[in-house]
Order: sequence, then C-alpha cells, then structure tokens
Amino acid sequence: MSKKSPVIAIVGGGVIGSGWAARFAENGHNVYVYDPDPDAFEKAARTLNNGRRAYIKLNLPSSRVRAKVNFVSSLKQAIFNADLIIESVPEDIAIKTKVYFEIERYASQSAIICSSTSGILPSKLQQKMKHPHRLLVAHPFNPVYLLPLVELVGGQQTDPRMIEKARVIFRNVGMHPLWIKKEIEGFVADRLLEAVWREALWLVKDKIATTEEIDDAVRFGFGLRWAQMGVFETYRLGGGEAGMRHFLAQFGPCLKWPLTKLIDVPELNETLIEEIAKQSDTQSGQYSITELEQIRDDNLVAILHALKHNDWGAGKELALLEQNYQALVVEKKQDISHPVRTLEQIVPVEWTDYNKHMNESRYLQCFGDATDALLLQVGVDADYIENQGSYFTAETHIRHLKEVVAFEKIHITTQVVSASGKKLHLFHRLFHSNGSLLATGEHLLIHVNLVTRMASEPTDVIVRSITELVKAHTQLEIPEGMGRFVGQSINQS
Amino acid sequence: MSKKSPVIAIVGGGVIGSGWAARFAENGHNVYVYDPDPDAFEKAARTLNNGRRAYIKLNLPSSRVRAKVNFVSSLKQAIFNADLIIESVPEDIAIKTKVYFEIERYASQSAIICSSTSGILPSKLQQKMKHPHRLLVAHPFNPVYLLPLVELVGGQQTDPRMIEKARVIFRNVGMHPLWIKKEIEGFVADRLLEAVWREALWLVKDKIATTEEIDDAVRFGFGLRWAQMGVFETYRLGGGEAGMRHFLAQFGPCLKWPLTKLIDVPELNETLIEEIAKQSDTQSGQYSITELEQIRDDNLVAILHALKHNDWGAGKELALLEQNYQALVVEKKQDISHPVRTLEQIVPVEWTDYNKHMNESRYLQCFGDATDALLLQVGVDADYIENQGSYFTAETHIRHLKEVVAFEKIHITTQVVSASGKKLHLFHRLFHSNGSLLATGEHLLIHVNLVTRMASEPTDVIVRSITELVKAHTQLEIPEGMGRFVGQSINQS
Repeated sequence: MSKKSPVIAIVGGGVIGSGWAARFAENGHNVYVYDPDPDAFEKAARTLNNGRRAYIKLNLPSSRVRAKVNFVSSLKQAIFNADLIIESVPEDIAIKTKVYFEIERYASQSAIICSSTSGILPSKLQQKMKHPHRLLVAHPFNPVYLLPLVELVGGQQTDPRMIEKARVIFRNVGMHPLWIKKEIEGFVADRLLEAVWREALWLVKDKIATTEEIDDAVRFGFGLRWAQMGVFETYRLGGGEAGMRHFLAQFGPCLKWPLTKLIDVPELNETLIEEIAKQSDTQSGQYSITELEQIRDDNLVAILHALKHNDWGAGKELALLEQNYQALVVEKKQDISHPVRTLEQIVPVEWTDYNKHMNESRYLQCFGDATDALLLQVGVDADYIENQGSYFTAETHIRHLKEVVAFEKIHITTQVVSASGKKLHLFHRLFHSNGSLLATGEHLLIHVNLVTRMASEPTDVIVRSITELVKAHTQLEIPEGMGRFVGQSINQS
Repeated sequence: MSKKSPVIAIVGGGVIGSGWAARFAENGHNVYVYDPDPDAFEKAARTLNNGRRAYIKLNLPSSRVRAKVNFVSSLKQAIFNADLIIESVPEDIAIKTKVYFEIERYASQSAIICSSTSGILPSKLQQKMKHPHRLLVAHPFNPVYLLPLVELVGGQQTDPRMIEKARVIFRNVGMHPLWIKKEIEGFVADRLLEAVWREALWLVKDKIATTEEIDDAVRFGFGLRWAQMGVFETYRLGGGEAGMRHFLAQFGPCLKWPLTKLIDVPELNETLIEEIAKQSDTQSGQYSITELEQIRDDNLVAILHALKHNDWGAGKELALLEQNYQALVVEKKQDISHPVRTLEQIVPVEWTDYNKHMNESRYLQCFGDATDALLLQVGVDADYIENQGSYFTAETHIRHLKEVVAFEKIHITTQVVSASGKKLHLFHRLFHSNGSLLATGEHLLIHVNLVTRMASEPTDVIVRSITELVKAHTQLEIPEGMGRFVGQSINQS
C-alpha cells in the first residue's frame, strides 16, 4: 500500500494532530508534521508511542507497510508534496484563516485540505480562501488512531468530488467516514456530546453526583450499549417486538417531563472548574495521563477485537482493514523446494499467561493457522470447504523448546512429510525472528466429508498439488524430533 | 449460592421485569413473576431465552446454581415469600401506588420493595405507603441480565439500611449499584440519556442526519470510549498531560456556542414519529427484534469478556462474579483413587471454527487449564508461583478422537502417570457430558525457576502431594493411547 499511498501533511501536532499522524503512519502513509511549538515533537511522541503500541496489539498485518512520521521545521516543507493536508490548530477562526493562507501558498494544486475543527462551519472556514472548493471538515475523535469515526462536512463552496476523494483516503486507513450533508455547528457527534456534557456539568454543580459517579453511570450502563448500537437502534429494542413506533408512543410523554436542565447552561466559573478538577483527581489521579491513555487504548483494542469477532460495527471496519492487508501480503508462488512459510505473527500480550510467556495453547493455535495456510495453498479454500470437504486434525505432537514473550515476532515453516489417500502428515517448525527454533508441531490430518462427518478422499486437484509438495519435501532431511512419543529420551529418538 | 439466596418477586413481566427475572435466575435466585396480562409469559419467554443464551456465552460457572423463573397467577403468590420485591409496571404513579397497596397487603414484614422507575421520585412513590421506609428506586438498564448498572435512590422516608441491604443483593448477581444520594427526576443516567435523546430528535427533525447516521456517529466514535471510561475520565485525556484543568480551560468557551438546541424541545407529533419509525425501519428492518437483541447480546458479552481480560470497568464486575462462583465450586478433597476431575466447561461458540466444531487449539487450551487445576491441587498456587517456581510444558501429544460443537458440555479427568525430580507426566481425558471420549492429552512438564528460567527441583511440599497422587494413580490401568507417536498404526500401539 505504501508505494502508491497518498502523502499526508499535518499542520498542528497536538493530541489530535499527532493522533492523525499515528493513524496514517501505522497504515503505511508517509506523514509530515509541522508545528511551530519547539516542544511539539516531544509532546507528540507520547501519542505516536501510544499509536505504535496500540497497533502492535491490534495485530493487523500492517507492520509490513508501517511508515514514518517526519517532523519538519516549516509549514512549506510539510505540505509541498502532500496529497492530503490536515489542519489541526486551535479552534480559533482567525488562526485557522491565517494557516489556510500559508497552506495555499505552498500546496500542490491537487491537494485536498481538511480541517479537524469540532464545531466551526466549513463555509466560514473557506470564506477567505483562494481555492475554497478543496476545503472540507474532517472531524476525528480521540484517540484518532483507534476510533474509526470521522465526520466529513463540506461548505457552500466545497466541491463534492473533494469529499469523495477524502472519503476513499480515510476508508483506506480503516476509518468510517460519515458524510454530513447539512452544515451545522458541532456537526452530529459533538452536538450529542455537548448535550451530555452540559447535563453532566449541571449534575456536578447541583451536587447530585460526582464526576466518578457520573462516569460509572455511563460505563456500567448505556456506554456498553453504544459501543455497538446507537441511540435509535438501542431504543428500537426497548419497545420489544412492537419496535420503534411502540417505543416512541410509550416514551414520548417523557419529553414533557423536566428531565434535563438544558434550558440553561451552567457558568463554568473558577469554582466549578476547581470542583470538577478536584473530583477528577480523586477519581483518576492514581494514574498518570499516559497510563490512563494506555488503559483506554488496551480497552479499545479489546473491544474492537471483540466486535471484529462478531463482524459488527467498528469491528467490521477492522476486519476490512485486515483483509486489505492480507490481500497485499499474498505471496508469489512459493519455492516449494524448501519448507513453506505458513505464518507470521507478533505475539499479542493477551496470548501470554501467568508464567509471563506465550501460553501452550497458542502454540497449537499457531500450528493450526499454519495448517490452514498450507491447506489454502493446495486448494482447500472457502469454496472447497463449502462444496467438497475439509481436513480434520487427528493427532498432534508438540515439542515446546523455547519460551517466547509478548511483542516478539515469530514465523512458521511447514514440511509435508507424507500423504496417502485421506491422510496428510505435516511437520511445522515455529521460529523466533532471531532464527532460534521455539517449537515443532507434528500433525496427522484426515480428509473429511463435512456432511457425513466421515473420512473421505480429497479431490484430484488437491491430490495433485499435495503430491507435488510431497515430492519436493521428501528430498529434504527428515525433521529432527519427528516420530517422537512424549517423554522419549534423546538417545531413543 | 442458591440455598441461602434471597427469593425474588417481580411484579410486571415486560422487557424490564423479565430482564430482572433472567438476571436473578441465571445467578441462582428463585424468581416469582406476576403480570396480569394473560400473554405475559409468552412475551417474557423471549427475554428469558435471550438471558439464558447470553449466560451460556458469558461462560461463568453459574450453570451450577441456575434457578427457575416461576410465573404465577396472582400477586399474592408471587410476593408472599419474597425477600426482595421489584415493581416493573408502567411509568404511571397512579398504577404504581395501587400496586404498592396490594404488595403491602401480602408482603413479609422484612421484604424490601424496589421500583424500576426510570424517572419518578421515590419520595412521591412512597407517599401513600403504610411502611414507606422500605421502598427505594432500583433503576436498571436494558438488557438487565447483561448491563451491570443499577441506580439506587431512596426517598425522604426510605431507611438507608434498606438501600444497603438491596445493594448487597444486587452486587451478588454481578451488578454495579450506584447509590444516588440526592433525589432528582431521571436520576443520573436517564438525565444524560434524555439530553442525547432530545438533541437526536432535533437532528432528525431538522434533517441534519438520519437515525442511522446518528447511530453511526455514536457507535464508531464516543460509544466505544464510553464502554470503558465515562465522560469526565475521557475528557481528562483530551487535555493531554495537563489533564482536566487544561481541558476545562480550553473547551470552556464552547459552552457559549450554540452547539445544542436544547433550549427547546421538539414536539414529538405524528409526523416526527412517522419519520423516525420509517428511518429506523430502513436502518434496522432487515433484522427481527429478536435477531437484533441477540446481536446486541453477543456484542455485549464479547465486550464484557474483553474488559474482563483487561480487569477494567464492567469486566471487573464479571471477574468478581466468576470468582464468587469459583469459590463456591471448590470441591471437597477429592477421592484420588480415580483420575482427578480438573475441568468443566460449556463450549463457547467463539471456540468453533470454519469446520463448525471446536478448533483444535481449544483442546490444548482445555488440557492446559486442566493441568493448571491439577497443579493448583498439589500446591502450585499464585503464592508458590510468585516465590518458588512453576511448571512449563515441554512436550504434548493429543489424539483428537471426536468432534464437539458449541454449547455442549465437556469435562476432563487427569491421571498422573509418573513424576521424578523436575519431571511430571500427565494424561488427560476429555469427555463429552454424554460420556464419550473426545480427546486425550499426554504431557511432559518440567519444574522451572521463574527467575533463571532453568529447570529446578520442586519444593518438598509439592513433591509430597505429587507422590501421593502418583502412588494412587499407578494402581490404575495404563491409559490407552499413551506413549503413541503421530501416525503410529493401531497394532503398533
């Protein structure tokens, strides 16, 4: 992906700007960041580190495309070669207008310019631009490298083709662009957030609840719902089988109740700021900001993985991204005179156990995945499984030779020992990236008819490709450790 | 738990009432439900089924305590024996007052009475009661069997000891009771929800976004954040290292912006209801309500598991519940003249693969867990591992004999084949609950010093208990299949 990926420039390297940088670099785009603050790089480093950490845990095959974030010392240097320029400077229209003036001086004609503003109308932002047709709002959410949502909003002078182009770029880095067709302050998400925020401020000010109690009311309740379904889909279920109409009829009258205080806005004066900050310290002060960010990221990664497994919502975006990378890394027809490379993997931290190394069952998981990759290569693909049959493992022997810990890179090579009729005998070697042998897996597989669940003959096509592999691999040495039984002494083997 | 568990009565068997019933029954409490609607049982069955389904997937050892939901034909029958009575009738103070009158006629003196109201003040609810001191609000969130939050609110006449008692009961079924000390319409969560709801209605009415777009703005963005941290803790991170004070100073001015329309409430007239219902059909109409509920529940289960793994938020509650059950099911000193029972498990659906059966790596996961259970029994506990050492698996042999599919019950028995010095040789048998042998696992383990990561001698205490097991188990037959190598023919064995 990296070769033809658009080049990204970020102007402003704060929490949002560096979040953008992490998102694009982790997904193979060269990124140039400019920020006039001399400490900008140092401040951004925290977010970039968090992004790297999160992507290792996301465990996408994106490590092959990962690109660099370049901090440069002038705006010109950052943008002159960029296809997409993202402005992430403070929410002040005067500052932003000045930045656009600078950007227009140096940007290429075809560059798209996006503002990260969370509330200012794009029509206002583009008012003084020379080429306003290429400005749009692309409003992301913190942490930008993990949350998929980006709101796209054009102004009166924006060319919709620019929004289309931007949309493709954002999709390619795993985001969910939401094109909001009508301009409004705060767009969609921040209007909802602002409503909650104002209500929450009242609850603290009126001493109904502390910041911690309010947060608990969110994360033990509706927050769990909203990680996977939104406001309306959730309420559709509140009405039971009768659905949305019933819900609206039943709960409509509540709108007349004085359930919120939002006819008015609390004044955020020193007293209230102090009160909230104090409560927040009590609630979260035992963690540093970086610790809290990493806890948040670990939770988001785990939630994204959970939803990916269910092929739903934000997890679906992740699955799509993974497919893109897998398509990228499909190797050319391999040289079969050697054992076949069937797996590459960074050890996720959740694969480790109380002994602080990869749990024994993950060895078999890797060997199982390697078997699947080998089978795919000889033609046992989704279509074959749907219509012809599959291979089941009948017997397994594993030698756990060395430990491996979280974040280390491992790979597997597979030797086809023998095959006859329904039987297939494989020998996997699991290596550390430093070349040391971590484990071996020896497996006997049986071809099975998935309807009768009984042993059956593979098709001729499969037999042919397996035979080819067996011929090549019987030229290789018999693997050390093959044919062992558990507890066999070395001189017995 | 079930023996001394309080008896629960639910008055009103709608989505909330039957959700309560599922929560309590799945956690071992006998539940009696009364609802005057003759179709109540049929309607509630959907929620009870969903609850059962979700708890199987939650995979707690709660299957041992699971109790019954009894639908009874009179309020008296439901409540006369109950320790906790939950009212879940429509949000109408006249109806609720009448129900409390009936409840007070038949309830035991010591019973606690909870209202599920989402907005009415407890002081109003208890106004006409004879014994108002025992009424409180216990406001849960749909689906009640999965979401941990329950808001507890007392009225002017409520005895705080009643709230304390209720809190313990709710904690014991895995909930997170949030005691709100100051009465206010809508309490805390529903005030926040109401704010979002009103803003969302405006967005639809003003045609800024459809219900689907609004939902996407939630579930691809801040909904993911709120599943694990709340409003304030999230914003604390928006301020970078400077934290909450910086965030408030930076974003305070936004409060002056016209970011929400909540100075006014949209009229939920026929036109708007029709518009929303139509959009909701377009968005979610391809699923039945039951399908959508199960998708939601699968997502919530997966998110709860993800957070449990990270020991955070709602996942921490789940971990706690699991520990409670594990403490419950610690068996008395086993009869060691037989192989030791070391695992019981319902196969979770996420353990199955494209062959529609339990993936091969899960066999080793089960054997690994069984090994851990055996080691725990001989004294290798957290304290031993912290200070003395641990066992690492050096070699594994698995015979995959029969398939097993999702939701089936399995168990493992473990025979200690031999032990000498650092070596420990185990033989596991994995059975289906119908008694058929699914797989065997033969393992050689080595005792290791966790500092040097080298083989080392176990302590005398461990040696003694292992020796006792070996002595007993060498009286048993040598397991069929032991000592096999992969591909060994039957007459070779």
